[in-house]
Amino acid sequence: MQYQGKNYRTVWEKDKRLFIIDQNALPFQFQIIELKSLLETVSAIKTMKVRGAPAIGATAALSFALEYEKTPEKETDIYKALLESRPTAVDLRNGLDFVKATIDQEINEKPAAAISAAIIFVENSVAECFAIGQHGNALLKNDSKILTHCNAGALATVDHGTALAPFRAAHYAGKEIFVFVDETRPRLQGARLTAWELANEGIPHAIIADNAAGYYMHNGEIDMVITGADRIARNGDAANKIGTYTKAVLAHENNIPFYIAAPWSTFDRQLINGDQIPIELRDQDEVLKIGDIEITSGLSKALNPAFDVTPVRYITGYITPTGIIKPEDLEKLWETNI
Amino acid sequence: MQYQGKNYRTVWEKDKRLFIIDQNALPFQFQIIELKSLLETVSAIKTMKVRGAPAIGATAALSFALEYEKTPEKETDIYKALLESRPTAVDLRNGLDFVKATIDQEINEKPAAAISAAIIFVENSVAECFAIGQHGNALLKNDSKILTHCNAGALATVDHGTALAPFRAAHYAGKEIFVFVDETRPRLQGARLTAWELANEGIPHAIIADNAAGYYMHNGEIDMVITGADRIARNGDAANKIGTYTKAVLAHENNIPFYIAAPWSTFDRQLINGDQIPIELRDQDEVLKIGDIEITSGLSKALNPAFDVTPVRYITGYITPTGIIKPEDLEKLWETNI
Repeated sequence: MQYQGKNYRTVWEKDKRLFIIDQNALPFQFQIIELKSLLETVSAIKTMKVRGAPAIGATAALSFALEYEKTPEKETDIYKALLESRPTAVDLRNGLDFVKATIDQEINEKPAAAISAAIIFVENSVAECFAIGQHGNALLKNDSKILTHCNAGALATVDHGTALAPFRAAHYAGKEIFVFVDETRPRLQGARLTAWELANEGIPHAIIADNAAGYYMHNGEIDMVITGADRIARNGDAANKIGTYTKAVLAHENNIPFYIAAPWSTFDRQLINGDQIPIELRDQDEVLKIGDIEITSGLSKALNPAFDVTPVRYITGYITPTGIIKPEDLEKLWETNI
Repeated sequence: MQYQGKNYRTVWEKDKRLFIIDQNALPFQFQIIELKSLLETVSAIKTMKVRGAPAIGATAALSFALEYEKTPEKETDIYKALLESRPTAVDLRNGLDFVKATIDQEINEKPAAAISAAIIFVENSVAECFAIGQHGNALLKNDSKILTHCNAGALATVDHGTALAPFRAAHYAGKEIFVFVDETRPRLQGARLTAWELANEGIPHAIIADNAAGYYMHNGEIDMVITGADRIARNGDAANKIGTYTKAVLAHENNIPFYIAAPWSTFDRQLINGDQIPIELRDQDEVLKIGDIEITSGLSKALNPAFDVTPVRYITGYITPTGIIKPEDLEKLWETNI
C-alpha cells in the first residue's frame, strides 16, 4: 500500500517488535504504533486499531509467536487471550492455529519455529491478496462501476486488500473504473479507510451514505458489488460487516453480480452454514456518537450488531487466490481437498 | 406534540407572525424561531430548519398568505420563491395552490381570505394526521415491532405525524409496541428527531444504523415497516427519504408488510409513475461531515441523493386519513374522485 511515495504494510514484525498502522487515527493522521505486550495487542484488536479479518489473523499470529518466545510457559493463556479478542473473524483462529501447530510439532527450537511460522503465515496472506487482485481484475471492464462496503482493503489485510485488490489490479492495468464507497456506519470504515486508500492510489471514487446504494443500483449505475468477508461457512453463507446482507439483497433484486473476495483462511469448512456464525454486538455508543460527538438527545438507546450473514443464494461467486469460485462448486472443493 | 408537559406544533401563525421549531437545533436545543420575511422562510426550508412534506406545505401556505398581505403585487414572486425552495415535496405546491385558488376566487378581501385559507389548510393537515394515526393503529398489535425510516413524525407535519401517528395512537391505546429507528444518514433525522419524539412520548424504541435494518428483518425481529412519503405518484410509486427503497426491498424479501403513511396532499395524481419525480441532489458536505466534523481525509468527493423512489410493487398499502388503501385500489379512487 502506497502512502506518500513509500510502501507500507498494515502490520509487520521487525527485530522481534510488532508494529501496526493505527486505523483509528486514519484518515486524519498516519500513525505507526508498536504493540509492546499481549495486553496492547488484545486491546488494539478490541478497539479496532487493527481490524479486518486477515489483518487481525496476521497480527494475532505474530503476537502469539513473539509473546510465546518471551514466556513459553504461558502458551495457552496467550492463545486464549488473542482468540477471544474478536468473536467473528475466523482468520484469527487460523493464524493462531498455524503457529500453534508449528510449536507442537517442533522439538528443539520452538520459539524460533513459532516466529518463522508467523512470518510464513503473513507472507502467504500477502501473496493470497495479490492473487485475489489478479483474478478479480478479470471480472472488471474498462468503465466498470463497482460498489464496495466497509474496508476490505490493504488496511484490512497485510497488503493489497481483498475486495480492493481487484480495483488496484484493474487500475494498474490501465482500466478506468469508478468505485462507489458505502460510508459504512456505524464506524465509517468506508468513508474513513476505503476512500483514503482509493484516494492514495488515484482510483476514481465517491463516498455515499449507506442509504444511497439502493438508489444507484436501481438506477442502473452500479455494475457489480464486491465486498470482503469475515467468515464464510461451508455452504457459502458469508458473515461480513453489518449492511453487507442489505447490499446483497439489493444487488440480487436489481440483477447485479455480487462477489465476495476472500483468502482461503476466511472459509470455515467446519461451519455447515451461516446460522452457526456468532454475531458480535458492539457498544451502543458507536451508533449514538460519531467520534466523541453525541448525535442524539441522550434519552434513547441503540442496538449495534457489528456483522450480518449473507445467505449463499445472494452470492454470485467468491474471488479467491486460486480463481473465481461459484457457490455450487464449493462442496466439491471441500470434498476433494481435505 | 408534547415537550416538557406542553403541547406544541411544528409550525404556527400567531398575530400574523410565523413561528417554527428549529429542527436543526434538535435534539440538543428546543428552540422556537420566528420567520420574519420571505427570505427567512425560503432559507428555513432550504436548510431544513423546517422539513417533512406536510410541515413544509403548511409553512409555505402560511408564509404565502402572510407575505401576500404585506405585498400583494408580488404574489407571483412569492409563490415562485416558495415553490422552488425544495423540489420533491408535492405538499409544498398543494399548500401554495390552495392559498392561490382562494386569492384568485376572492374579489374584495383577498389578503384576509388568503390567511383564512392558509389556516384551513393547516388545520386540515392536523386532522388528517390524527386520522392516519387512528387507521394505522388498527394495523398494530400488542407487542408489534415496527421499523421506521427518517422522521415522519409530528416534526415533519404540523402535529401527530404520518408514520409516527399510528405509534402514538397505539401507545395511547395501551398497546406495548417497540420501534426500530433507522438513524437515517446523511442528516440523521431518525436518530435526532424520531428518537426524540418517541422518547418524549415514552414509546419504547432503539436507534439502529441504517445498515442494521436488514439484519433485524432477516432475523424475524421486525413485524412491519411504516414510513412517510414526500410524493406518491398516481400508480403508487412513492418518493421518500434516501434509503426508503432499500427498506422496502428488504421488507419484500423477508415477507414483512411495508406501509406508507401519508395525507391525501402527498398523492400527486398528475404523475403517472415515480420515474417523473425529480430527485434532489444535496450538498456533498452532508455526507463528508457530520455536523461540523469532517469524517474523511478531504481527498474524496461524495454523492448525495436526498430521496429515492420505491416502486409500488414493494408497497403493501397506504395509511391515509380515510383508511388503509391497497395499491390496486388507487386507480379506482382517482377515477371516482376527480
